[in-house]
Amino acid sequence: MNRIINDPDDVVEDALKGLTAAHPDLLAGTAHPRVIRVAGAGAVGRVGVVTGGGSGHEPAFVGYVGPGLLDAVAIGEVFASPTARAFEAAFKAADGGRGVACLYGNYAGDNMNVKMAVRLAARDGLAVRTVVANDDAASAPPDERGKRRGVAGEILMWKTAAALAAEGADLETVIAVAQKTIDATRSVGIGLSACTIPAAGKPNFSIADGTMEVGIGHHGEPGIAVRPIAPARAMAATMMETILADLPFARGDDVAVLVSGLGATPVMELYILYAHVAEILAEAGIRVRHRFVGNYFTSLEMMGASVTLTRLDAELDRLLGAKARSIGLTVTGDA
Amino acid sequence: MNRIINDPDDVVEDALKGLTAAHPDLLAGTAHPRVIRVAGAGAVGRVGVVTGGGSGHEPAFVGYVGPGLLDAVAIGEVFASPTARAFEAAFKAADGGRGVACLYGNYAGDNMNVKMAVRLAARDGLAVRTVVANDDAASAPPDERGKRRGVAGEILMWKTAAALAAEGADLETVIAVAQKTIDATRSVGIGLSACTIPAAGKPNFSIADGTMEVGIGHHGEPGIAVRPIAPARAMAATMMETILADLPFARGDDVAVLVSGLGATPVMELYILYAHVAEILAEAGIRVRHRFVGNYFTSLEMMGASVTLTRLDAELDRLLGAKARSIGLTVTGDA
Repeated sequence: MNRIINDPDDVVEDALKGLTAAHPDLLAGTAHPRVIRVAGAGAVGRVGVVTGGGSGHEPAFVGYVGPGLLDAVAIGEVFASPTARAFEAAFKAADGGRGVACLYGNYAGDNMNVKMAVRLAARDGLAVRTVVANDDAASAPPDERGKRRGVAGEILMWKTAAALAAEGADLETVIAVAQKTIDATRSVGIGLSACTIPAAGKPNFSIADGTMEVGIGHHGEPGIAVRPIAPARAMAATMMETILADLPFARGDDVAVLVSGLGATPVMELYILYAHVAEILAEAGIRVRHRFVGNYFTSLEMMGASVTLTRLDAELDRLLGAKARSIGLTVTGDA
Repeated sequence: MNRIINDPDDVVEDALKGLTAAHPDLLAGTAHPRVIRVAGAGAVGRVGVVTGGGSGHEPAFVGYVGPGLLDAVAIGEVFASPTARAFEAAFKAADGGRGVACLYGNYAGDNMNVKMAVRLAARDGLAVRTVVANDDAASAPPDERGKRRGVAGEILMWKTAAALAAEGADLETVIAVAQKTIDATRSVGIGLSACTIPAAGKPNFSIADGTMEVGIGHHGEPGIAVRPIAPARAMAATMMETILADLPFARGDDVAVLVSGLGATPVMELYILYAHVAEILAEAGIRVRHRFVGNYFTSLEMMGASVTLTRLDAELDRLLGAKARSIGLTVTGDA
């Protein structure tokens, strides 16, 4: 395994040193070694917005801490949930006196630890409410949405909720807009090659050369189907069929589109995929209002990509366009 | 080869469709199919800033077109120079009436085509002056700097020159600041795995598992040495020894640091590398004024990273901090 690491057990600690050293204008450490908060004043006088999750998905999760985005993040080991204590510490780091919204992905470990952390925070009088992202349309049937995983759609949920919090909304309103965002969001991924957790030293799943796994999860969770590798336009068609039918999206809808690489896919290929996604949306009479293409939510050096669509109303459209600054997503409001 | 492409011969055309579709606020097509210009008014009344180069290095080169950065870019096939006609068309697309600065990397094909394009443009009365980036310290000895390749340091040269052009400087002054920037810039790369040009279908070089190539070029050009894979802190030490001694950088210097992934290296590992780079600089008494960590200048899905240092005076420091917006680099001026 040719990688840029020291002791494989130290990758998270070593990366956090680099993250805080590289971005003193965005990120600040806290008393908890696995909690990073926004530099500066933070959420004083407004609702705090928090997430947490395993490492290895960078720029998620820590890369979305910044003005107009997340106030704090709890950080787990590679592909593992943060602890309950880390989530609790993140809540406290994000507390500006008006409660905290914890917006996270639907994984067993995260669910358990967030629940525990919410109870711990409540004992200290801190009100935390949660929204669980379940945008991965491939991970369970439509009538079992509660079983679906959260993937790159979480980013759009963080963006809208944080923008509303910045406007001074109360906790209930921030939670409602986060829920509205994720309810209007569907994602699907395609995996082309596996990845290796440094401490494991070899992939814990495999994708054979010449095949692709439709609906693969961010940690190699099995998808819907293993198929022969197809041209980009066929990949896009397969992905769009899955997500358009699921919400369903309809002619006349306004949407945001997020195409994220899973880590190793060359950036030019993400744009090839986006070109086909845009064509399919144009043919379907769906109007793209916001476009994000890049490595937004990765899985170490997995090859492949995810496509995320969010149906927008005027409020979500406005909140996605609000100014924000972070490692993973900066909106200048200039365009 | 598991990749997101259609016909391997169409990857550049297909990617450009996606790029222009995804970023209508930044990028506009031109009459030349391999030239992209900045959206909006462009360089009217000021010096135009242009580059060009092969595809497969995204976000370079096209990803640095935008307000406060490049006005136009000529785009080649994967790892191949743009044509002279493409460079000429890019000059014309960037012409705002005060001449054009063409700031590009030192490769045989680019040198030949830029020279031809400058002559073609001169016939039409368009003044174009050039600066050739040669920041790759590993690619030739210090007394043969003219043979060195241009790598990620080009980005910092584009940034300072474009910021000065935006202030209204004349062509001679813009060229001088670009030359000053690249003269104060040194880079080195380490390759951990090879990459595959889609139209070739297999790597045209190899890096054995368990080894790393110090000083590798952006197209797999041989480096200084093939060594056993080392811990990140040793990789950082090797890279920093090479570039610190070369300029040389000295105690009390102010610098900008750019750590770029070569494509497939997980983002967390780039931050692990940056943490050690920052430690080494602190020990050397060198102050970091600007930090850039991410996939800024890639080589398809090569694993590895490059480190770039630029020694700053007050002018370069100011110009790097000026507002700019592009796919690859956005400076908000808020921090």
